Amino acid sequence: MQKKHNQVDIKLLESEILNGDIKSISKALTLIESNLPQYHNLGNELVNSLTKHKKNSLRIGITGVPGVGKSTFIDAFGTLLTESGKQVAVLAIDPSSGESGGSILGDKTRMNELSKHPKVFIRPTAAGTTLGGVARATRESIFLCEAAGFDVIIIETVGVGQSETMVHSMVDFFLLLMLSGAGDELQGIKRGIMEMADALVITKADGENEKKAEMASREYANAMHLFPPKKSEWVPLSFTCSSQEKKNIDKVWNTIESFENQTKINGWFEEHRHIQDKYWLRETLKEMILDEFFENDDLLEQLKLKEEQVFKGEISSFQAAETLFNAFNSKVRGTN
Amino acid sequence: MQKKHNQVDIKLLESEILNGDIKSISKALTLIESNLPQYHNLGNELVNSLTKHKKNSLRIGITGVPGVGKSTFIDAFGTLLTESGKQVAVLAIDPSSGESGGSILGDKTRMNELSKHPKVFIRPTAAGTTLGGVARATRESIFLCEAAGFDVIIIETVGVGQSETMVHSMVDFFLLLMLSGAGDELQGIKRGIMEMADALVITKADGENEKKAEMASREYANAMHLFPPKKSEWVPLSFTCSSQEKKNIDKVWNTIESFENQTKINGWFEEHRHIQDKYWLRETLKEMILDEFFENDDLLEQLKLKEEQVFKGEISSFQAAETLFNAFNSKVRGTN
Repeated sequence: MQKKHNQVDIKLLESEILNGDIKSISKALTLIESNLPQYHNLGNELVNSLTKHKKNSLRIGITGVPGVGKSTFIDAFGTLLTESGKQVAVLAIDPSSGESGGSILGDKTRMNELSKHPKVFIRPTAAGTTLGGVARATRESIFLCEAAGFDVIIIETVGVGQSETMVHSMVDFFLLLMLSGAGDELQGIKRGIMEMADALVITKADGENEKKAEMASREYANAMHLFPPKKSEWVPLSFTCSSQEKKNIDKVWNTIESFENQTKINGWFEEHRHIQDKYWLRETLKEMILDEFFENDDLLEQLKLKEEQVFKGEISSFQAAETLFNAFNSKVRGTN
Repeated sequence: MQKKHNQVDIKLLESEILNGDIKSISKALTLIESNLPQYHNLGNELVNSLTKHKKNSLRIGITGVPGVGKSTFIDAFGTLLTESGKQVAVLAIDPSSGESGGSILGDKTRMNELSKHPKVFIRPTAAGTTLGGVARATRESIFLCEAAGFDVIIIETVGVGQSETMVHSMVDFFLLLMLSGAGDELQGIKRGIMEMADALVITKADGENEKKAEMASREYANAMHLFPPKKSEWVPLSFTCSSQEKKNIDKVWNTIESFENQTKINGWFEEHRHIQDKYWLRETLKEMILDEFFENDDLLEQLKLKEEQVFKGEISSFQAAETLFNAFNSKVRGTN
């Protein structure tokens, strides 16, 4: 067994990734995400060598409730980009959202045109992973895609859980797709997401839907005008598009290009990346430290008992926290 | 020295607090927040005995940028409540917000009418405390004020930092005060706060300002209509008020009463408190665990070095986190 692990040629893998070989990215991700320390360490080694190489990608987050037409949009949008010579990676997040056929998320057949293109890398995140796990896997994927020279990395997420806040904290530009007929369709979208968006695009603005979409877009534009200004100094836009009729798909890209230009000039682009790096370094570290508590079945059991006692008013939450902290310390420090 | 500590009569203090004695609340808070273990433990003992007593307060969070007239509003609002026989506590948060005379926050003289009333307890949070520290102190204050039988606990915060998210997670009702003339004055309000509000009230709707305030209120009402519905099923309201002319101050209270009725019937009131309890138990525990890293000067120094290396692209953030985690473990486990 040991021998087999060492057969992974890290140097070869590195040069293949740097050459943009898509299969090697998948191989590297498998290494990094492996639970076997040997593989995991090889993955780390690879990540470290790749850190030194300059990267030049634009990271775009795309969110919207199921039914908004994310896949169709990304298919049309990504195809537009590849036609202009860009290499596009699509990372799909939160495939396990039960409700509406989440299992097909990340399925290559969803994106018909785009997945046929040889320069496109589409990778779903495995279901059943914790949010922290998904975050890490996604950031590692971004990292490898950048090393492989992808020009645009699209991170797709369903706007119903906590994943979109996470995605927002790892992308340069955040795009919110919405349906017309404001109100009912909003049920699924989490509060706060609208204010995160750098652009809000009403999809399916074709046929009978067109007028309704235009009206919705104007309403959102008015509402967004009332939001506090963004640190990026970018003023979010709202407009309509049709993936089917390929209408305004280029406007989305032009908008993103304007954003990139403006924020590279005013310094936000770089500053934002630094803030994100710092944030994720601390988050990763915190998670490692907290996992020692929250991945310990015995301590979790004690936590649940204390929660019940607090609910019943038997003990205060301060007292509960102190008891649990002491149990944690004697456990971790005692057994090591 | 030891003898002096034991002179604090916890049983007496407890009965005084239960009788609504305001001075005893301050004494208890001093104990709980003390860095001396003897005092701190007595404080914990007190909190535990008080846990058993039934509480029946309504917790209201009030936020808005400096200049919006928070103090004047709370003065008028609190006076209205005390006039109808209610006991009101006002807890002020984030007094250290440098920019605009933050140091007067919590100053009793700010609230002229209200502070004269014998049933009112006004307590500022000490400046220079960390957000985690402020959160804990505020929750302890809420706890003691509830034990003392206050009917309404107002938690006041400046809507510019992170404190309003924290306040939002410990109150039943969240009120956002805004100025008319939408746009410019919003500079200070953090994105996302509008969506947290259960009511948005435009202040200073008097004299020449009145029409402008009405218009702003209608615009906000339209914008809020586009937000996703709240879990409480409560539909946030937007209207104007004048603290000076005592106009619509009663409408604020009526709105809060409607909210309380509605959410007590649909079960949200209780469920929300449970969610908050659970959240704060976990947050307190997490902070205790993480403090072992983030209150260690040596480890913080190492963290800063790693951050710089990540910025410069010398190491990956994953590698940095792992190195820091190992340093932490050998430190904490080695020295204890």
